[in-house]
Amino acid sequence: MIYLDNAATTLHKPAQVIDAVVEAMNTLGNSDRGVNSRSLKASRTLYEARAKIADLFGCLRADHVIFTQNSTEALNIAINGTILSGDHVISTDLEHNSVLRPLYRLETEKNVELSFVSADSKGNLSLEAFEKLIKSNTKAIICNHASNLTGNIVNLSKISRIARRHGLIFIVDASQTAGCIPLNMKEIGGDIICFTGHKGLMGPQGTGGLCIREGIDIKPLKVGGTGVKSYSSMQPQDYPTRLEAGTLNSHGIAGLSAAIDFIQSIGINFISERETKLMNSFYEGVKDITGVKIYGDFSLDQRVAIVALNINDYDSSAVSDILSQKYNISTRPGAHCAPRMHKALGTESRGAVRFSFSWFNTYEDVDRAVQAVREIAL
Amino acid sequence: MIYLDNAATTLHKPAQVIDAVVEAMNTLGNSDRGVNSRSLKASRTLYEARAKIADLFGCLRADHVIFTQNSTEALNIAINGTILSGDHVISTDLEHNSVLRPLYRLETEKNVELSFVSADSKGNLSLEAFEKLIKSNTKAIICNHASNLTGNIVNLSKISRIARRHGLIFIVDASQTAGCIPLNMKEIGGDIICFTGHKGLMGPQGTGGLCIREGIDIKPLKVGGTGVKSYSSMQPQDYPTRLEAGTLNSHGIAGLSAAIDFIQSIGINFISERETKLMNSFYEGVKDITGVKIYGDFSLDQRVAIVALNINDYDSSAVSDILSQKYNISTRPGAHCAPRMHKALGTESRGAVRFSFSWFNTYEDVDRAVQAVREIAL
Repeated sequence: MIYLDNAATTLHKPAQVIDAVVEAMNTLGNSDRGVNSRSLKASRTLYEARAKIADLFGCLRADHVIFTQNSTEALNIAINGTILSGDHVISTDLEHNSVLRPLYRLETEKNVELSFVSADSKGNLSLEAFEKLIKSNTKAIICNHASNLTGNIVNLSKISRIARRHGLIFIVDASQTAGCIPLNMKEIGGDIICFTGHKGLMGPQGTGGLCIREGIDIKPLKVGGTGVKSYSSMQPQDYPTRLEAGTLNSHGIAGLSAAIDFIQSIGINFISERETKLMNSFYEGVKDITGVKIYGDFSLDQRVAIVALNINDYDSSAVSDILSQKYNISTRPGAHCAPRMHKALGTESRGAVRFSFSWFNTYEDVDRAVQAVREIAL
Repeated sequence: MIYLDNAATTLHKPAQVIDAVVEAMNTLGNSDRGVNSRSLKASRTLYEARAKIADLFGCLRADHVIFTQNSTEALNIAINGTILSGDHVISTDLEHNSVLRPLYRLETEKNVELSFVSADSKGNLSLEAFEKLIKSNTKAIICNHASNLTGNIVNLSKISRIARRHGLIFIVDASQTAGCIPLNMKEIGGDIICFTGHKGLMGPQGTGGLCIREGIDIKPLKVGGTGVKSYSSMQPQDYPTRLEAGTLNSHGIAGLSAAIDFIQSIGINFISERETKLMNSFYEGVKDITGVKIYGDFSLDQRVAIVALNINDYDSSAVSDILSQKYNISTRPGAHCAPRMHKALGTESRGAVRFSFSWFNTYEDVDRAVQAVREIAL
């Protein structure tokens, strides 16, 4: 089976990730719940993972790294924890429903005002548009680092400067780039980075989180047991405890920690380069096939390893089905939880077939996928 | 090392649980995100786990089983998703901070009124007290199935009848009993059961959930990508999607599914019986030691396998430390995130040392723990 659905989840995890999860399941107690050796081992595992993530994303304080179940939870915490009734928020057409739906809910229930920067037909944003949308009640800019449909990367540094100039909170959705593309919140000036562990970071499902800049105040979404300050009726105010009620997924986080070691041992730039080459090889192979329409901008300096396309007038689900059934190639059709992006590209009705590559794919995978597209397009 | 902190998390997982997680990490795509074989395998894994959990807890619809990161998240969803501004809620002194803090927050922020049924000096609730506390705006009763400090079980059927009679939602926190004590929501008449996967169910950390009775309406805590109905700006209304935004921890849930197979193959009554024998053996061994004060009611027909005690006038943390350092026995001291229970028992200042047993403990573990308590009490 050729797995080209890595933008949904990376199927192939490094062996040391699986080993780390097994080791954790055999040895970890419950972090912060007791002073016994097993509980302490869990606490150390979590702390080490926080430190590695802080280092990876340029977060100045390891205790400002928060673990969540996934990126969606991180985004819900970031959005609901910072945006108040009556605030105005600027976001973009590139966003996933994990950003859009929390925002639409705030619009409906809390009188929050929303503006969206439009994407052009290649899926790019006009950076000037952000500044034009700012109003007196604008509180935050929330922006994807890369579209999960086109793979186009957004220049976060420029948007960050706009946010800084106007005193806005800048929230970045790094779901598609964490582990694939270097992202340093100190360098770009981000306030909150939301990431998932099971995609580019090559970690287990059930992991993800936020990196928070010191001084950014986020209200908790969930409250509950923390193992510390148990007699306080309110959630403790210190990070990470403030946003981490309940037992964390230490088993999964141990795997994520090993995954980051794997990524750092290779180097994220080298990973990005290899994935880009795989993507370009596929792109070059299919772009001139008659009947193939490709979305996104392939002239950008940097992209995540995604090629979304349609073939003739076929429905994307039918094509993805044929790829799976006849060629044993896994892709993802449909809407990709990115409704505004599909509207901008004019693919709302039939979706698109997304091919997404990882470190573990080979050029043979690419060649077979190109050949399959060629045959389907005939 | 002798691990007697199973009420915090079970350290020993059945081998097939670990095997299932490894298998999942090697083979699962992202459920509901695509129609390729790996994605479908993830969807099937989740559905099978839902069906097993529905069967275990007597939930009539597998699609009304919701997966969460842990029990705390499940309780936050249940509480915040059903209680509205101005409602009155009845809860108890037995509750964990995963129930108390969400309730206190609603009291502070949403004008929700709270009443608590008191525990007596043995940690038992007066069931008559529930009915006396009901007011015209009472919306729900939220009650622990068993205290995580004393191990006392609560007679849920009686409380459920009171709830039913007055049209109240009955929410059960089964964190300490799921997998250890039979619990059938059809038989007891529960509306929402919240459980965790990593304690009595012997599954991985990062798993837990809710079982919801058909007709009970819960508002989502998080919203976002669902892989279905992607063009709707609002979260889809059907369970389980309504409450499950973002990628689930399929790897952990595969392990939980295998854990339930393990439990069912032995029989939950047999597990309960063995754990009770281990607990009773420890209780009999320590109860007459001079200076040992035990909390909870050991005359109850059924208990979870917990013995909480103090020795002389020692601080519980000091005792737990000695047990860990000198005897290599893992226990949990302090407040156990159960502030009202400690207040009721008069152990607020020094906490208590909790010994909690699992299927994988042995009588030799018990004997060594008894001997350690005897020596410390000298």
